[in-house]
Amino acid sequence: MYEDLGFSKVDYDREERTGYPEIIYGEGKTAEQITLIAEKLVERHGKVLVTRVSEEKAADLKEAFADSFYHSVSRIFSVGKPEKLYRGKVMVLSAGTSDLPVAEEALLTAQWMGCEVEAINDVGVAGIDRLLSYREYLQTASVLVVVAGMEGALPSVVTGLVKRPVIAVPTSVGYGAHLEGLTPLLGMLTACASGMSVVNIDNGFGAAYQAALILKVANEEK
Amino acid sequence: MYEDLGFSKVDYDREERTGYPEIIYGEGKTAEQITLIAEKLVERHGKVLVTRVSEEKAADLKEAFADSFYHSVSRIFSVGKPEKLYRGKVMVLSAGTSDLPVAEEALLTAQWMGCEVEAINDVGVAGIDRLLSYREYLQTASVLVVVAGMEGALPSVVTGLVKRPVIAVPTSVGYGAHLEGLTPLLGMLTACASGMSVVNIDNGFGAAYQAALILKVANEEK
Amino acid sequence: MYEDLGFSKVDYDREERTGYPEIIYGEGKTAEQITLIAEKLVERHGKVLVTRVSEEKAADLKEAFADSFYHSVSRIFSVGKPEKLYRGKVMVLSAGTSDLPVAEEALLTAQWMGCEVEAINDVGVAGIDRLLSYREYLQTASVLVVVAGMEGALPSVVTGLVKRPVIAVPTSVGYGAHLEGLTPLLGMLTACASGMSVVNIDNGFGAAYQAALILKVANEEK
Amino acid sequence: MYEDLGFSKVDYDREERTGYPEIIYGEGKTAEQITLIAEKLVERHGKVLVTRVSEEKAADLKEAFADSFYHSVSRIFSVGKPEKLYRGKVMVLSAGTSDLPVAEEALLTAQWMGCEVEAINDVGVAGIDRLLSYREYLQTASVLVVVAGMEGALPSVVTGLVKRPVIAVPTSVGYGAHLEGLTPLLGMLTACASGMSVVNIDNGFGAAYQAALILKVANEEK
Amino acid sequence: MYEDLGFSKVDYDREERTGYPEIIYGEGKTAEQITLIAEKLVERHGKVLVTRVSEEKAADLKEAFADSFYHSVSRIFSVGKPEKLYRGKVMVLSAGTSDLPVAEEALLTAQWMGCEVEAINDVGVAGIDRLLSYREYLQTASVLVVVAGMEGALPSVVTGLVKRPVIAVPTSVGYGAHLEGLTPLLGMLTACASGMSVVNIDNGFGAAYQAALILKVANEEK
Amino acid sequence: MYEDLGFSKVDYDREERTGYPEIIYGEGKTAEQITLIAEKLVERHGKVLVTRVSEEKAADLKEAFADSFYHSVSRIFSVGKPEKLYRGKVMVLSAGTSDLPVAEEALLTAQWMGCEVEAINDVGVAGIDRLLSYREYLQTASVLVVVAGMEGALPSVVTGLVKRPVIAVPTSVGYGAHLEGLTPLLGMLTACASGMSVVNIDNGFGAAYQAALILKVANEEK
Amino acid sequence: MYEDLGFSKVDYDREERTGYPEIIYGEGKTAEQITLIAEKLVERHGKVLVTRVSEEKAADLKEAFADSFYHSVSRIFSVGKPEKLYRGKVMVLSAGTSDLPVAEEALLTAQWMGCEVEAINDVGVAGIDRLLSYREYLQTASVLVVVAGMEGALPSVVTGLVKRPVIAVPTSVGYGAHLEGLTPLLGMLTACASGMSVVNIDNGFGAAYQAALILKVANEEK
Amino acid sequence: MYEDLGFSKVDYDREERTGYPEIIYGEGKTAEQITLIAEKLVERHGKVLVTRVSEEKAADLKEAFADSFYHSVSRIFSVGKPEKLYRGKVMVLSAGTSDLPVAEEALLTAQWMGCEVEAINDVGVAGIDRLLSYREYLQTASVLVVVAGMEGALPSVVTGLVKRPVIAVPTSVGYGAHLEGLTPLLGMLTACASGMSVVNIDNGFGAAYQAALILKVANEEK
Repeated sequence: MYEDLGFSKVDYDREERTGYPEIIYGEGKTAEQITLIAEKLVERHGKVLVTRVSEEKAADLKEAFADSFYHSVSRIFSVGKPEKLYRGKVMVLSAGTSDLPVAEEALLTAQWMGCEVEAINDVGVAGIDRLLSYREYLQTASVLVVVAGMEGALPSVVTGLVKRPVIAVPTSVGYGAHLEGLTPLLGMLTACASGMSVVNIDNGFGAAYQAALILKVANEEK
Repeated sequence: MYEDLGFSKVDYDREERTGYPEIIYGEGKTAEQITLIAEKLVERHGKVLVTRVSEEKAADLKEAFADSFYHSVSRIFSVGKPEKLYRGKVMVLSAGTSDLPVAEEALLTAQWMGCEVEAINDVGVAGIDRLLSYREYLQTASVLVVVAGMEGALPSVVTGLVKRPVIAVPTSVGYGAHLEGLTPLLGMLTACASGMSVVNIDNGFGAAYQAALILKVANEEK
Repeated sequence: MYEDLGFSKVDYDREERTGYPEIIYGEGKTAEQITLIAEKLVERHGKVLVTRVSEEKAADLKEAFADSFYHSVSRIFSVGKPEKLYRGKVMVLSAGTSDLPVAEEALLTAQWMGCEVEAINDVGVAGIDRLLSYREYLQTASVLVVVAGMEGALPSVVTGLVKRPVIAVPTSVGYGAHLEGLTPLLGMLTACASGMSVVNIDNGFGAAYQAALILKVANEEK
Repeated sequence: MYEDLGFSKVDYDREERTGYPEIIYGEGKTAEQITLIAEKLVERHGKVLVTRVSEEKAADLKEAFADSFYHSVSRIFSVGKPEKLYRGKVMVLSAGTSDLPVAEEALLTAQWMGCEVEAINDVGVAGIDRLLSYREYLQTASVLVVVAGMEGALPSVVTGLVKRPVIAVPTSVGYGAHLEGLTPLLGMLTACASGMSVVNIDNGFGAAYQAALILKVANEEK
Repeated sequence: MYEDLGFSKVDYDREERTGYPEIIYGEGKTAEQITLIAEKLVERHGKVLVTRVSEEKAADLKEAFADSFYHSVSRIFSVGKPEKLYRGKVMVLSAGTSDLPVAEEALLTAQWMGCEVEAINDVGVAGIDRLLSYREYLQTASVLVVVAGMEGALPSVVTGLVKRPVIAVPTSVGYGAHLEGLTPLLGMLTACASGMSVVNIDNGFGAAYQAALILKVANEEK
Repeated sequence: MYEDLGFSKVDYDREERTGYPEIIYGEGKTAEQITLIAEKLVERHGKVLVTRVSEEKAADLKEAFADSFYHSVSRIFSVGKPEKLYRGKVMVLSAGTSDLPVAEEALLTAQWMGCEVEAINDVGVAGIDRLLSYREYLQTASVLVVVAGMEGALPSVVTGLVKRPVIAVPTSVGYGAHLEGLTPLLGMLTACASGMSVVNIDNGFGAAYQAALILKVANEEK
Repeated sequence: MYEDLGFSKVDYDREERTGYPEIIYGEGKTAEQITLIAEKLVERHGKVLVTRVSEEKAADLKEAFADSFYHSVSRIFSVGKPEKLYRGKVMVLSAGTSDLPVAEEALLTAQWMGCEVEAINDVGVAGIDRLLSYREYLQTASVLVVVAGMEGALPSVVTGLVKRPVIAVPTSVGYGAHLEGLTPLLGMLTACASGMSVVNIDNGFGAAYQAALILKVANEEK
Repeated sequence: MYEDLGFSKVDYDREERTGYPEIIYGEGKTAEQITLIAEKLVERHGKVLVTRVSEEKAADLKEAFADSFYHSVSRIFSVGKPEKLYRGKVMVLSAGTSDLPVAEEALLTAQWMGCEVEAINDVGVAGIDRLLSYREYLQTASVLVVVAGMEGALPSVVTGLVKRPVIAVPTSVGYGAHLEGLTPLLGMLTACASGMSVVNIDNGFGAAYQAALILKVANEEK
């Protein structure tokens, strides 16, 4: 069952089918289009998450939705809170200061989906001791999202240190041979460590979404 | 702690650190090198898994290891069995008949790591009813590994039908614009469905490894 | 026979030769250049179609041509109406809300060329039921234009459901591994479904043009 | 409805759904696998088409199917004949002698699907008069398949000469900057002529398949 | 012998060595830097040519050089006139109206270097009769510069019609699969016609420069 | 006027139109096909040139043509001699020993077309004095063909030393970042020296063909 | 030991570990973030170097740090001076005027790190005599940093003239086939001269950093 | 001064100019060509190094040179020994067993050039403790060559641990997204650690050559 707005078909069955209501990808949609779709989703599910919302669009959205939240670094807009908190924890690591917006998108997404989250920032491999100081602590995570730009070496090292699934997120932070993120993307895919998978460049949202699904499985299996 | 064989350092701590003993990537190693490393691992852990083993190397390995197993389609060689069987199930879907070697590598890896597995083959999107006939059944999986060559559209459709994490594996099956798998790889990374991550081209092993880690989390969290 | 304007040679024989008068590609031409060419074409054929016209140029063009039409989303500018309406129907499907400008370009082009058109929007494969709800209805089309960004999986699925030729249009909607549309373009070219061909990224015009030629054949063959 | 052979699901509904029975892509399948699938299809539909069949596999297939046909240049294997012959004609043009295998694949596919076909070979643009000598004759086609390697310029020129839809097929004939066909593929996609679409490198089959669907529409619309 | 300005070494021997004084590539240099270098060259050789000069920089340059010339479409700035006029003629063909800036750069460069030039515009292959109407006339050229964007098919066709060397110039006019000119560039390099070579994307200057050297050889050999 | 052999149309007008009879590209054609086409061309023009002929095909061709010549390094096969010798000289430079096959293809082609030729081998830029020892001598050439693999720097340096047109030929000699010749190809296209154009990777034939056309112009203009 | 600022972990051990304090990459960090990190570093080490600082950020930084230095062409910001001056000299060559910003970044970095530096500008290979006039002088360098855009041929030629290690820096100066620096990058990597290594596009900083480490080794070994 | 063998010019001045005699790149040269060049070099310098020599060619070379050495894994052939041993040490690290051939090429090259060498194998980042166990020891190197395939993360980590210049060598060991070594190559170029430069894929020779030049500087500077 869906509702047809002409320019968009709002997919009301998605929660039933996939565990979560439809989430809106904000880029390439007007503030008006987002508002119309979001209203339908809030009406039905009591909450909504919109990613990649510019500050201009956010201003319009905040007027339309009374009890809403906007985070300008990660460009996340949301209405509503998670109904339940899963046991377990999503740990989000990032390699450098410039990777923060993507790491924040992951954090806020996982949180909105009902996960406990934790951030460890600026632990890139050029100063490996920063990461190693968290060595024991990493084992407390249920699933790890590892965000890195440049050559994207951090996820390989982390995956070799933990028992948990690692979801790697390359970022567009870099220049020249970095090819706007294509280089760390391909590097992460060909990494030597076992237990890691990869999402699109700057897709903190997607990594967190899968992390939440993993916690969900962990909470349902018994 | 590791043992130095000169050409290789056998990493005995890997099980302690990452939950599983070191697994040997067979390509680019001689049968003799594989045998030496595998002996050390079997001695220590009682089991070993080797991927990408050609039939020639497998013949040598079978002589060296009495109680071993070799599967020529997936090129998997293994010694030993999983100690425990996790609750939950890894479901491996593949799009076409030519994707079978990669799907089989995933199946055998997950099995060796202690997972219950199930295969659904030849459900590519050109005949969507084949996939839809499994629609309810897909929900019985804990995690899905979806293998597809050509344009690699299957994981998107599957991810939109289930509540579980999907790990997508592009294959090198195709020609021309398929770019030896690069096209489905990039396509899966930019897919519109939420809840999916991607591993390297033909990396059935890597997808299954992460799937097993997910089941492991699900069995440990309580 | 053509008329030489110095910067351009207006091809008056094109209708005779190819069935339709010359159509103007608006990008990279000044409003003045477009006006000069369009005047010649209107004089000769009583109508003209211009694609990729920015709002600024459109303002100038609207002044020059009394009975004209401009659609800002698709950037189509036109003068005149089709002389005849072909039997049959061009159906334009699009995967997401952000693909609308390209879908609209296709719709308006086919209409201007004398086709009956119909649009089905936002039926991307992440919520396959939206598409399946049109399953029977798809068979009423004579030819289908299928527009999709991201990984571009929609045309494969559609082609597997219909008896009619499908013309696939990748769009530049996406990011990262999407490579500004190259990824869905290559994906569509390597798709597993038979009966489909592909046009350039965002080329709704080109897809509709070929669709109209197909209807034309269908109306002439007897 | 489909039949599950384990490694393959034979899609019996495809004719009902898409107008033609399933066609087998021979590459990456063993002679045994092809035989098993083809037997099921012949049993159900009385005919089968297999593409990309090596001479070795063809020898095995010829033994399994009494009344079969194999063409070694195009690597087409088929059983059975078309039930009806569509009005109209598919014209297949090729640019150079080395493009013949792909052109032949197109010819035999269209023929098997019930089309009248005609071939014009070696009319590449370096000697434009060869093509121009067919100028009037080209207008007798209902749809044109244009096959070209090297820089792939032929389809643009042909499209500018006819009223009919042109389906362009780039080939892997060339070297260096030709990038195994990627260069003519991209060139054809960005061609300046209207009315043309493109299929994968060396995909004579795919072009002919769509051409046949176009004739089918032309024969059904009234 | 050269003069060192610190940021630049003005190469006074270039005329002696290569037949022409140094020519200044204007992009990435400030108006001030261009002025300083140009003054030295004018002082020594009585003339100078500067390519890729923006309108802003041109305004500054026109103030600095009394008897100068600026052409805004081609962004050519020059001082002085050729000393001698070579026998023979450089013919510059361009495929579409949007290729004019590059064609003009070629025309003005060749002229400044002492060649008689002639332009034939908008003769792209989609309307081949426009080109064919010049068929005899093309043979009056000594060397041809052929400028084309989109798929860049024009040089192949022209080369097949003439006895003279053809220098092909791909342009950045196009979108999507055109890859900002890379597609026609590669296409021209892999063209089937003999007698043609290629210069960089939009490099009308470079093509004309070589054309002038060819006329020079033709005027010196006896 | 052409003769249709079915698989090929022999273009008898090419000499009239382009100054030289058709030349046969040997790759992708069978010895039998080459023989049939070559016979027609020899019959008409008294001579023929075939490029890229393997030793196997050459053996067949030598039997078919009494007075023929085959050079195994360059894979050139020819019948007949040039009618006239142009004034002027084509100089072929190559950077390394491994570039010889391409340089030889250029030499033999230019010779067959009626040019005086001269070779200077192994003058790559890593030992610039080898090239500089020819500095004066380079000025005796009418046109230069410069062949280089690896990074392809030689043509830039040569072009900066001479008054004559330089045609650069990248070769497939190299590895890794050399990308089978794509790297020197692109490098030559973006070279800083004026007066140079580029042909396809390993296309010694094409460079020599254009060089001969340049000598031809130089001999005809007066 | 490091200090955690939340968004950044300042790595105080870096000098101890790698010989130099942490250097700040300015791009993608706010002026405020840079200030906070830089303050910590100045406090600890008495100096700091920040690269890629825009003029806007530099204005803020100059207010925060009394005794600081900013160079707008190279976008280098620094506080403090080197403690010691190494014996030996870093020579920085650049090919063209437009490569100056990158060459300056190299010069200022090496200087800040304690090296004597020297610059030779505009010695690109199109006028090889400019470089050759420094032939003897090049041998006075201990290590050479060679900066070049376009096809990037300069480092090959230089490496063939000296006994010293050469670090090549490709720049983003160029257009079309230059691919924003990828072409010279790949060219330098596949260069025929021995003794040269390569850093990222426009990475003058990285080349100078390694050059300084080389001088450091030279000063410590005895 | 050089000697011209026709196919090759033996560069006798190279030692004078660059510190070492010419080294022969064996790929693409026949055993006979290598022998002729090597004889000249041995005659002049008393020693020679040849890289990339297949076992077949090596057999011929061993016959020609009495006191020679061949190493089949690294494909290095050499005659003669270094005259002097530099103070300092080149340390060669490699990430995996399959990277050994490249690491061995580096080792043997550095040794032949007069360096003390040391190898540390199989210390890839997936088991970081193997590398960390050498942490103190790494500081004893004067320069480090770090060889890695897959994603190539090892050099970044090593560079962050040492005070010495690191030369990174990507290898062609990997599959799929590894792009035959292009991925680690680009990754190393965009690495976050300072003090590292990169050579071509599998170019162990080139890295060692530069390492030896660095030791040479260190031994000469005083």
